[in-house]
Amino acid sequence: MSKKQKMVEAITPRDEDFSRWYTDICMRAELCSYSTVRGCVILRPYGYAIWELITSELDQRFKKTGHVNVMMPLFIPESLLQKEKDHVEGFAPEVAWVTHGGDEELTERLCVRPTSETLFCDHYADVIESWRDLPKLYNQWVSVVRWEKTTRPFLRTREFFWQEGHTAHATAEEAMKETLMILELYEEFYKSALAIPVLSGEKSESEKFAGAVNTYTVEAMMHDGKALQAGTSHYFGDGFAKAFNIQFADRDNQLQYVHQTSWGVSSRSIGGIIMVHGDDDGLVLPPAVAPIQVVIIPIAPHKDGVLEEAFRLKKTVENAGFRVKLDDSDRMPGWKFAEYEMKGVPIRLELGPRDIEKRSCVAVTRDNREKTVVPLDHIVEVLPEMLDDLNNRLYENAYERLTSRIYDVSDWDTFVQTIDEKPGFVRAPWCGEPECEVKVKDITKATSRLIDGDVGASHRCVVCDRPALHMVIWGKAY
Amino acid sequence: MSKKQKMVEAITPRDEDFSRWYTDICMRAELCSYSTVRGCVILRPYGYAIWELITSELDQRFKKTGHVNVMMPLFIPESLLQKEKDHVEGFAPEVAWVTHGGDEELTERLCVRPTSETLFCDHYADVIESWRDLPKLYNQWVSVVRWEKTTRPFLRTREFFWQEGHTAHATAEEAMKETLMILELYEEFYKSALAIPVLSGEKSESEKFAGAVNTYTVEAMMHDGKALQAGTSHYFGDGFAKAFNIQFADRDNQLQYVHQTSWGVSSRSIGGIIMVHGDDDGLVLPPAVAPIQVVIIPIAPHKDGVLEEAFRLKKTVENAGFRVKLDDSDRMPGWKFAEYEMKGVPIRLELGPRDIEKRSCVAVTRDNREKTVVPLDHIVEVLPEMLDDLNNRLYENAYERLTSRIYDVSDWDTFVQTIDEKPGFVRAPWCGEPECEVKVKDITKATSRLIDGDVGASHRCVVCDRPALHMVIWGKAY
Repeated sequence: MSKKQKMVEAITPRDEDFSRWYTDICMRAELCSYSTVRGCVILRPYGYAIWELITSELDQRFKKTGHVNVMMPLFIPESLLQKEKDHVEGFAPEVAWVTHGGDEELTERLCVRPTSETLFCDHYADVIESWRDLPKLYNQWVSVVRWEKTTRPFLRTREFFWQEGHTAHATAEEAMKETLMILELYEEFYKSALAIPVLSGEKSESEKFAGAVNTYTVEAMMHDGKALQAGTSHYFGDGFAKAFNIQFADRDNQLQYVHQTSWGVSSRSIGGIIMVHGDDDGLVLPPAVAPIQVVIIPIAPHKDGVLEEAFRLKKTVENAGFRVKLDDSDRMPGWKFAEYEMKGVPIRLELGPRDIEKRSCVAVTRDNREKTVVPLDHIVEVLPEMLDDLNNRLYENAYERLTSRIYDVSDWDTFVQTIDEKPGFVRAPWCGEPECEVKVKDITKATSRLIDGDVGASHRCVVCDRPALHMVIWGKAY
Repeated sequence: MSKKQKMVEAITPRDEDFSRWYTDICMRAELCSYSTVRGCVILRPYGYAIWELITSELDQRFKKTGHVNVMMPLFIPESLLQKEKDHVEGFAPEVAWVTHGGDEELTERLCVRPTSETLFCDHYADVIESWRDLPKLYNQWVSVVRWEKTTRPFLRTREFFWQEGHTAHATAEEAMKETLMILELYEEFYKSALAIPVLSGEKSESEKFAGAVNTYTVEAMMHDGKALQAGTSHYFGDGFAKAFNIQFADRDNQLQYVHQTSWGVSSRSIGGIIMVHGDDDGLVLPPAVAPIQVVIIPIAPHKDGVLEEAFRLKKTVENAGFRVKLDDSDRMPGWKFAEYEMKGVPIRLELGPRDIEKRSCVAVTRDNREKTVVPLDHIVEVLPEMLDDLNNRLYENAYERLTSRIYDVSDWDTFVQTIDEKPGFVRAPWCGEPECEVKVKDITKATSRLIDGDVGASHRCVVCDRPALHMVIWGKAY
C-alpha cells in the first residue's frame, strides 16, 4: 500500500480540530453520507446497523417494562397541532408544511410530525373510556422532522430517527413514576449498552419541553467537554388531557382526566458514541451495538490452509453467537487493520501460518491495542470476557473523564473563566430566575444542563448573588 | 354477559357484505383506527405487532440473501424526482408537496417519498466507483406517501408501510437474476409465513412500474375472488443508471453503467391475511405472524389452584418459545373466547378445575374449532404440531379456493359473463395490444394480473380475436 493512499485516508487528529475529526469519522467509517436534500443525511449500511442494534437494545427494555409499539400518521393537521398552546408555540416555527397533494392545494395544511404528542392525545381521546383502558403504555419508532438552520450528522439534522414513548395513566403519581422509571431505564441503557456514563436530573423551566410540567434529562459529556442531551422524559400532568379532552370513567364511574408522559432517545446517541469513545484512528464501538464484534484477518492467506482455518474460526465464533466478519478480500493486512480500526470493531483476530502451527491466533482489542495470544480451542471462552473488559474500560475511562471535569464554582468570575478555559461542566448554585440563565448563555454560551439538587439559602446564585435555590450543572452543549 | 353486548360486538357476516365485514374486523380486532389525517390510519398495538412479525420474517430472508438495510431521507427534491422521465410521469400526480419550512417558503419544493428509486440512484452515483463496489444490495423499511382519492385500511392509504429493496449490479444478467430471486423469495414468504398461495409472473406493459423494463408480481386471491397484488419485483436495466449517471470502472478499467432492480412488499399484506383467512368470527392468523399464538383462558378462576396452574402452564409454554397470553381478567370465559377468536389467536387453551384434576387442558384450534384434550405434561410437544397443522390447513384451503376459481375461457362472451358472475380469476389468451386491456377494463372492471406464459398463434386473443401472444390471468383487483 502506498504512503499516499494511507495519507488520503487518514482523518483529522481529534485534538487538532474536534469538529472536523467528528465529520471525518462519520464519513470514513461509512456511517452516513450527505444527500441532495439539504440538512438530511443518508444512513449507510454500517451506520444503520448501529441504529438497528440501539433500537433492539431499547425496544427490549421497553417491552420488558410493559410497553407496546404503535404507529401514528406522519402528518399532523394544523388545527390539531394548535390544540395545546405551549406545545404549538414551541414547534410551529420549525415544522415542514405540506400544502399540496398532487396538483391540488389542501384545504388545511399538514405538518410533518416534529414529535407526536398531539396525534397520541387525539387517539387516546378516541380509545380511552374507562379505568380498564389504563394505563396506555405506547411507543413508536419513527423519524421526525424539524427545519433546523444549521445541521450536523447525527447531532442535528432536519430528519432524525428516534423512539417516542407516550403514556396515559389514571393518576398523577403513576404518571410521575413512569417518567422517572424511564429516566432510569435510559441511564441504565447508556451505561450497559453504550458504555456512556450520564448525569440525570430535571431541566430548568426555560429548558423544558414545550407543554411539559417537568422535563428530566440524561446528559453525557463528550471528549471535548461539551454536553450532549442524550434522552429526555417528560411529565405532562393533565395539561394535554384537558386540551384534548382525554377522560376516563374511574371505578366509581366518575369522569377523570388522564395524566400523561412522553420520552425519547434519538439517533444522536450515535453522535454520542463517536464523541465519547472515538480516537485518532476512528470509531470505537461498545460491543452491544457493534455490527461487527470480531473481525478475522488472515495473514498470508495464499499460504496453504490459512483461509480454511480462518473460515473454521469464523464458524466457531459465529456459532457461539458473536457478530463476526472474515475479511478474505485481496487487500493487504495493513489496509484491513486500519479499515476495521476506523470502523471501531472491538476485537481483531489475526491468523497466519505461524499462528496456525501453534494452534492459536492473536487477539487485538480496539481501545488499547493490547495483543493477546489465544489458543484456537479456547476462543469462545475468551471472547465474552475480552468484550466485557473492553466495555468496562470504555465506561471507566468515560466516567473518569466526566467526573474529573465537573468543576465546583461559587463566584461569577471563576465561573466565566472556568467555562472559557476548562473543557467540561461547571457545578454552581442558581437562584432560579430565567434572567440569570440568559446572562450565562449570552456571556459564556453555556446553558443549564440539569438541576443537581436543591440547596439551602446559605448558597448564593453564581450569577446574581441572591440566595440560591438549586445546584445546577452548566455546560456548553451540542 | 348480556345478549345485547354480544350483539353490539358482532361483525357483519362475510357473505352479506364483504367490504363491511373487512372493515369490521380491522376495527373490532383493534388492528387499526382512523386518524384525523384523512386517508391515514393509526396502527394500533395488535396491528403493529403483526407488522413487526411480517417485518422480521422478511428481514431475515433479505439478510440471509446478502442484503443490508439503509435509510434514505423522507424527502425528494422536485428536480431529483424529474430525472427519470417515465418515473416522474407515474408518480408526480400523486405526491404530497412540502413547500414551507417554518415560516419560509422553500426555494425548491420537496415531495414526501412515494418510493425511493431516485434517492437510491443519487446515492449510488455518489458511492459506486469500481467493480469492487458491486453489487449493492440495499433495502429500507419505511413509510411512503401517495395522495390517493379513496382509501381503505391496509389496502390503500395515503401513508403506508413497506420495505423497498434497491440493488445495483455489474451486469444485466445478474440484475435479472436478483429480480427473479426476490420474486421467489416473496412467493416462499407468502406461503410459509402467511399461509397464502400466490400466482407469480410478469406484468403487462401497461401494468408495469413507472420506469421499469420488466415488472414481476405475486398475486393472491381474496375470499371474494378479487386479486391482491401482494408484492412486486422490478428489473430496470440501465435506464435509471443512464438518467443518474451511475457508472463503475470494470476489471479492465472501462466505464460501464450498472443494472438495477427494485422490489417491495407492504402493509397491504395484512389486508391479504384478513381477506384470505378471516371468517365470520373475525381474524384467523397464521402462527408465524400471530402476536399471540396461544391464549390461556382459566375456567372458574376463583376456584382453588386454577390461576396458579394457569400461570404455571403459561410459564411452560412461554419457556418453550411460544408467544402466549394468559387472560386472568374478570371477564367471563365466553367473552374471552369471542375476543381471542376475533383477534385470530391460533390456539386457545381452556383450563378449569376438572381439567386440572385430570392433569390436562382443552386445546381449541381457531380455524376449525376442533377441541383436543391435551395432557399438561405433553403440551410443549403437542403445540408445534398443532400450529403446523393449522398453518397447513389455512394454506390448503386457500390453495383449493385459488385453483378451483381460475376459469379457462377462450371467447369474449364467456369471458365477460364469467368475470361478471363467477368470483375468481379468468385465464384467457391476449394479443399483447394495450387497447384490448383497456376494453376489458372498461367493460368488466377486470385487469390483466399477470402473464401466465406465452402461447402459439393457434390461440386467439379473447378480446379482438387476433393471434394471441400470451396467456393472461385476468381479475378484478383491490
